[in-house]
Amino acid sequence: MRLFIFTLILICHTTLIGQIERIEPLNWWVGMKNSELQLMLYGQGLGAYSVTLDDQGNGVELKKTNPAKSKNYLFLDLQFATDAKAGTLSFTLSHPKSGDSIVMEYELKDRDPKMLTIQGFDSSDVVYLITPDRFANADPENDSVEGMLEMDLDRSHDYKRHGGDIGGITQHIDYLADMGFTAIWSSPVLENNMPEQSYHGYAMTDFYKVDPRFGTLEDYKELSNKSSTNGIKLIMDQVANHCGSEHWWMQDLPFEDWVNYQSEFENGERLTVTNHRRTTNQDPYASAYDKQLMEKGWFVSAMPDLNQNNPYLANYLIQNSIWWIETLALGGIRQDTYPYPNKEFMAKWANTIMTEYPNFNIVGEEWSYNPLLVGYWQSGSSNKDGYESHLKSTMDFPLQKALVEALTEEESWDKGLIKLYEGLANDFHYTDPNSILLFGDNHDMDRIYTQLGEDVNLTKMALAFILTSPRIPQVYYGTEILMQNSAKPGDHGLIRTDFPGGWNGDTQNAFTGKGLTENQVKMQEFLRTMLQFRKGSNAIHRGTTKHFAPANGVYTLFRTIGDEMVILILNKNESPVTISLDRFKEMEIEGKRFFDVLENYSLELNGELDLDSRGILVLSKIASK
Amino acid sequence: MRLFIFTLILICHTTLIGQIERIEPLNWWVGMKNSELQLMLYGQGLGAYSVTLDDQGNGVELKKTNPAKSKNYLFLDLQFATDAKAGTLSFTLSHPKSGDSIVMEYELKDRDPKMLTIQGFDSSDVVYLITPDRFANADPENDSVEGMLEMDLDRSHDYKRHGGDIGGITQHIDYLADMGFTAIWSSPVLENNMPEQSYHGYAMTDFYKVDPRFGTLEDYKELSNKSSTNGIKLIMDQVANHCGSEHWWMQDLPFEDWVNYQSEFENGERLTVTNHRRTTNQDPYASAYDKQLMEKGWFVSAMPDLNQNNPYLANYLIQNSIWWIETLALGGIRQDTYPYPNKEFMAKWANTIMTEYPNFNIVGEEWSYNPLLVGYWQSGSSNKDGYESHLKSTMDFPLQKALVEALTEEESWDKGLIKLYEGLANDFHYTDPNSILLFGDNHDMDRIYTQLGEDVNLTKMALAFILTSPRIPQVYYGTEILMQNSAKPGDHGLIRTDFPGGWNGDTQNAFTGKGLTENQVKMQEFLRTMLQFRKGSNAIHRGTTKHFAPANGVYTLFRTIGDEMVILILNKNESPVTISLDRFKEMEIEGKRFFDVLENYSLELNGELDLDSRGILVLSKIASK
Repeated sequence: MRLFIFTLILICHTTLIGQIERIEPLNWWVGMKNSELQLMLYGQGLGAYSVTLDDQGNGVELKKTNPAKSKNYLFLDLQFATDAKAGTLSFTLSHPKSGDSIVMEYELKDRDPKMLTIQGFDSSDVVYLITPDRFANADPENDSVEGMLEMDLDRSHDYKRHGGDIGGITQHIDYLADMGFTAIWSSPVLENNMPEQSYHGYAMTDFYKVDPRFGTLEDYKELSNKSSTNGIKLIMDQVANHCGSEHWWMQDLPFEDWVNYQSEFENGERLTVTNHRRTTNQDPYASAYDKQLMEKGWFVSAMPDLNQNNPYLANYLIQNSIWWIETLALGGIRQDTYPYPNKEFMAKWANTIMTEYPNFNIVGEEWSYNPLLVGYWQSGSSNKDGYESHLKSTMDFPLQKALVEALTEEESWDKGLIKLYEGLANDFHYTDPNSILLFGDNHDMDRIYTQLGEDVNLTKMALAFILTSPRIPQVYYGTEILMQNSAKPGDHGLIRTDFPGGWNGDTQNAFTGKGLTENQVKMQEFLRTMLQFRKGSNAIHRGTTKHFAPANGVYTLFRTIGDEMVILILNKNESPVTISLDRFKEMEIEGKRFFDVLENYSLELNGELDLDSRGILVLSKIASK
Repeated sequence: MRLFIFTLILICHTTLIGQIERIEPLNWWVGMKNSELQLMLYGQGLGAYSVTLDDQGNGVELKKTNPAKSKNYLFLDLQFATDAKAGTLSFTLSHPKSGDSIVMEYELKDRDPKMLTIQGFDSSDVVYLITPDRFANADPENDSVEGMLEMDLDRSHDYKRHGGDIGGITQHIDYLADMGFTAIWSSPVLENNMPEQSYHGYAMTDFYKVDPRFGTLEDYKELSNKSSTNGIKLIMDQVANHCGSEHWWMQDLPFEDWVNYQSEFENGERLTVTNHRRTTNQDPYASAYDKQLMEKGWFVSAMPDLNQNNPYLANYLIQNSIWWIETLALGGIRQDTYPYPNKEFMAKWANTIMTEYPNFNIVGEEWSYNPLLVGYWQSGSSNKDGYESHLKSTMDFPLQKALVEALTEEESWDKGLIKLYEGLANDFHYTDPNSILLFGDNHDMDRIYTQLGEDVNLTKMALAFILTSPRIPQVYYGTEILMQNSAKPGDHGLIRTDFPGGWNGDTQNAFTGKGLTENQVKMQEFLRTMLQFRKGSNAIHRGTTKHFAPANGVYTLFRTIGDEMVILILNKNESPVTISLDRFKEMEIEGKRFFDVLENYSLELNGELDLDSRGILVLSKIASK
């Protein structure tokens, strides 16, 4: 069976013999902290060539040429002197038998000086999560791309491509900036040349190529530039765990262990899928059997599981991440399915990146409601097994769940708001709660408005908490106009509904407000007000936190730094209530003047406070003279 | 109001002026590691007396005499030389004005040498929890005790006294030993002279007196002796958080801060009750308001909250615990409501005891389903706030819940047995999982048989897991005969049903087997078999643990030490299944001979294994020659 496949490849590639089809990374930079680089060369028969680097005085040395199992790959180990110079490296590849030789050029760029201090997203930011296929279609020209496996759009189908693109995000950066968002996390836009569901982007078929249906590398750079100009950080969604089954290398894998269960794949056998038992990463009692299945099983059969234990693949993935950071001046990475790859590799990956960019940030996805697991992955956690992830940010699925339960459950001694209070109390376990991402929903979960039974007030409460808590808030696109998936809970396609106004001819336009309902407009205003206020609030960004146990359906959170103070009061009752301020004596708010952020007026706190039914009060202390 | 109370006391006590009513601890020992002792003297007008200790060459010095706020107390600080001698200390108390003097004698005993190495319960033990009022009534003479507030029995009422006593436990030690239990935890038997619900024992009215309705101190000593003779450790249930509102000192408290919110009590005001917000112990954001309410609020209005910040009370409670350990040669303490008292005090309390008895054990009750909280309280936990509890054992409420959900939920990727698998995986967080108490139920929870829908097989599965897991198992009395409270879930009175055979005239007798149903007999046999096997199983006591992710409704746990191995296999399916042993290759069981503990035969493991529907397989490896 393997022979058969190779024969096929030979036929496809005969015209390319002796030519270099790929050199990856596509280029590199001088002046990186890490002085090593490993190039992957791909081309028919390349493995037989010997390679020399012409000494042009660049300060770059070819340390070693590594053949692969497949005769069509070469891996070149380069070493950079500290004073290595930008320019074009020239390599000569010689065939020892035929005497054929190939000249290969490779570009070394100077770094943009700003990359030396590039700042990752943090708790002063609010992240807007976008499913790019569903946000806005700026360029109908790229809706259909000849030769791609899923060529056409079908906006009537929840799981087909709808035509949104990178340009669609760029086009609406001003809207996002006006709303007050300061970071964008778009789900992946790299090539997903898959026959089905290529819209979601998580089955990459080329780690160095923007999917032409989303645009070009230049489009991606323009998004980055325009974001930066508007004070918005760009977070890239990366996947180290797997690729798409249509990835170009899947028909000619460099080594026999490039993907896990590779021989099964090559023999055309039924594939081994992961058991998804993520606790095997921590469980002292986990069997080797379950650990291997977890780490090495394929995520789904269309997503081959990459074997990061192969050192060439490990280098490839790390360099790929750095290439994108440097190319796009990224403000962060969101790493998919964090607990699935080899965890020692993930630690090395994160550590290499964070060493190169000390102020950068990476958030890893561990979808667990168990704070123990979430805490395990955060850098600095005192894990008994000694594991140090080097990962600054995790995702707060436990608090997300607690928040929804807090708002939807009827109040009792152990239900309702107490879940939020006790959920936040778990922060005692985390190394750095302020660097954890908190959200009401994301692209894989029911819309928060749906989770909260389409209750506008509860949705505002959830957002008000997320935006004042000691966290990095994340809001999914469309939340500001109450997008929902109530018709089909759990349905990913529907969750990722098109954003109105993103397509020519849309009757509703959320960018301009045209055709929005009163509730939608009010929610948009509410979020804009909260986001713009949060932007300038040091107390929220970096303040200390104090909260009071829920009492009679009212929860109160204080954020304080120096003389700045923000108070969040949530009244879950379906009737107005008056609360005494006696309980809050230690906060020294009595007689102080505060600004009501949502209602836009100032008041002095004395004795009691009236709260609207299902009311949200956000108070900001007015500095005393 | 306060004046009024004092007047009353004066009237009651006039006959006692100048007499010492109480000296506590009742006696002490020479040769303790801790060389300090503080005596509390109580008697009308005692505070005015000065005290001298006659030098009898005992090596004991009276360092200081401390008056209290109440004129009826004196606290004497004694210092013991390392060679202090047993005997009777003689003190002279002199009234400076009247010239009256009182001679007071105090007994110092030699220690029983076994106390120097006393061993606390551990994972080699199985604890039998008894509610003594409901277990067996050995002495009908003590059923009614003249002058006590709740004098009579009423066996028809779930919340009244039923007449069980200490003698009832002693009488049936042979039954417990025959079953295979190696430790008894009886809920408290100290005086609870309360007008209502005095049967449960948690509202103590005298920390040095056995409740006469349960027996005498001699009875308690006899229980201890007979237990010890039968290889059973005696665990005492203690309460440092509160006393009963009818405690003798409540009418004449030594200091103004002996109990929390004392002035409210003395002024006859409405009492402040705890908010039960136990997370304030850990929560970095908890308000001082909530922390104070948690720690200082009364558990219920009939249970005054003791203020362990008062140093005299702190000494009193610590010495009281040590007095009972030394007097009864205890094999452990179970400390009630662990997170409610001042936590620094609790650490000091535990540390003082564990320093005196390094091999002792204390288990603290934190009723939380959050492993973070349970882990926080265990000694050695790397808590960020630096808290070190010195508490060796905690209670595994999280795993108890997971176990019940595992057995009652329908199997799916995130429900059913996976809860057990992932629950046990949380052990990565605990300092010492082997020292955590695991149980199916206790005196405050629905009977495990009720929790499991009165399914005998599921109940056996729960017990089989509890008895083979890396834990200290605890079984509530009556579990062996399927006692249930299904008629009234949550009803404490019903949960604590009388054990059949404990009362003269009982038609059923679980001690003899008379009148038991077939299911009851079988459960008793099942437990006896498991317990007797566990007693000799080092693999269970101290072995390493390995388990396999549930697959097709089957969960598998391995415990191994040296060449010993125990395998637990639970088949939750309602039909027989055959499993392949391939998955367990790493355990090297293929071709090895095992003993089937429950079915009492031996087999060689090869290829596959047949499991009964809802079947439990406990296999013990037969040593190869």
